[in-house]
Amino acid sequence: MLLLLMLFLSAESRAQQTIAERLGYPRDAKLLIVHADDLGMAHSVNVATMKAFETGLVNSGSIMIPCPWLPEIADYAHKSPQADLGLHLTLTSEWTSFRWGPVSPRDRVTSLLDKDGYFYLTESEAAAHADPKQVELEIMAQIERARALGIHPTHLDSHMGTLYQNKELFEMFLRVARSQKLPVRVAKNWFTRPDLPGMLNPDDVYIDRILDITPSVPPGDWSKFYSDAISKLEPGVTEVVIHLAYDDAEMRGLTFNHPDWGAAWRQRDFDFFTSDAFRKLLQENQIKLITWREIGKLIK
Amino acid sequence: MLLLLMLFLSAESRAQQTIAERLGYPRDAKLLIVHADDLGMAHSVNVATMKAFETGLVNSGSIMIPCPWLPEIADYAHKSPQADLGLHLTLTSEWTSFRWGPVSPRDRVTSLLDKDGYFYLTESEAAAHADPKQVELEIMAQIERARALGIHPTHLDSHMGTLYQNKELFEMFLRVARSQKLPVRVAKNWFTRPDLPGMLNPDDVYIDRILDITPSVPPGDWSKFYSDAISKLEPGVTEVVIHLAYDDAEMRGLTFNHPDWGAAWRQRDFDFFTSDAFRKLLQENQIKLITWREIGKLIK
Repeated sequence: MLLLLMLFLSAESRAQQTIAERLGYPRDAKLLIVHADDLGMAHSVNVATMKAFETGLVNSGSIMIPCPWLPEIADYAHKSPQADLGLHLTLTSEWTSFRWGPVSPRDRVTSLLDKDGYFYLTESEAAAHADPKQVELEIMAQIERARALGIHPTHLDSHMGTLYQNKELFEMFLRVARSQKLPVRVAKNWFTRPDLPGMLNPDDVYIDRILDITPSVPPGDWSKFYSDAISKLEPGVTEVVIHLAYDDAEMRGLTFNHPDWGAAWRQRDFDFFTSDAFRKLLQENQIKLITWREIGKLIK
Repeated sequence: MLLLLMLFLSAESRAQQTIAERLGYPRDAKLLIVHADDLGMAHSVNVATMKAFETGLVNSGSIMIPCPWLPEIADYAHKSPQADLGLHLTLTSEWTSFRWGPVSPRDRVTSLLDKDGYFYLTESEAAAHADPKQVELEIMAQIERARALGIHPTHLDSHMGTLYQNKELFEMFLRVARSQKLPVRVAKNWFTRPDLPGMLNPDDVYIDRILDITPSVPPGDWSKFYSDAISKLEPGVTEVVIHLAYDDAEMRGLTFNHPDWGAAWRQRDFDFFTSDAFRKLLQENQIKLITWREIGKLIK
């Protein structure tokens, strides 16, 4: 009876605790993950992100297993076992000049392939055609391939949000993540989507909010957008999701017809998040950088 | 009887004709194909080769269907239907930071895959492990994928020569090429390999010689090597096999641990074969550029 009461109180108090408190920080702590997406996609992405990691100002990232520059970042992961690297599970291939396809045998994941045999260009096409069983086969293959390459992921997210496109895919994604005991990119500020809270279990770990820049911000306002957001950062755990690369020939060739998330966009992200101005903002606003590795320790 | 005699004479005279004569040129004509390998491998390779094609001095190339930058060069092929583009059938993935795998379902070509699920790094490993039936499945898939993308290949060759590594693979390669009525990169100056002539049929078309630079040539002698070879070019059909790209960040990232056929190597090839000096050498030595498209017309 006493044990039951203790368990009840423990569950109760955990329910009342914020994620910050569960991580051992004060309730009003401002905690930030500076997360670079798309590792493995291109050489330019890899080298810019590795350079940004060196500054300590960008402290997390996620890897696209089906992409051709995976071995370069897998080698980095080997040499940097403390790096906070997750998997950016990939079901889309969005650039028209440079494309990739599944890790699993093509004939077993036909619902994921466009007429040219690559992943679909957009998350909406991918989700509309995807057979969830085939998606599960493919994301498990990506996780297994990562592990076989010596990558030990600290978290999971979904490139272009394909796995968040409908309830069936998202529930499967959560189920896979639970089976792997890995945290997933889910944030309370997404709960305006009414079906989301109901899909989560009491044991699921999620952060308070995701912050990302959008195409509506003019290039000249890049620094202002991020500076304002960081100055006004609310207590709790925020992940700022960024996309790093250099504005070089490879990246321009890749994104030539798509300036959103393109070469110049990624250079602007790189310039801001490796700047002294960003470092100063973190200090002035008493923001502490944390990682998904810490969050993953909350998972039983 | 007359018809039989005529057929006999026709076959007889064809056997005595040189490839130059069969193409309608004098026996002493110096005919050259300037052939860029590895299209589709990297953005740097694609843009350098397309630029070289513009000069008219490089006039042929072959495409690697499994590589990520394929769509960029497929788009070029669409827009340039007269370009002399063949397939560089690919069974190896030789750079350690940037890799690719098969077009056909992985579980049907397991003998072509290394422990990480990519093609082997070297042609000798690939040939040693390859089940010829699986190779045939894969190269047919590459040909079909090319056609589905609107590429109409004028010829076939083999990346890193994997399909020439042993008799079984080469015989299968010739059989596939005959079924496709496409010429294959085969040259009389390779007949020092004793098993080669016996594998060819009377109807097979082959050229006189292949010319390619090797790692034994110091970078400073690049221009001298090619200039000497072109000045001394013998009559008949020669293919000079070159590798174009820019010495840029992408190409350096890709070839960082492999200077042979690396970024600077490819820039040197680009510099020589797009130069006025090369144009002048062609004129001075009365060398005419021809294509595989012309050679393919000899195939019945």
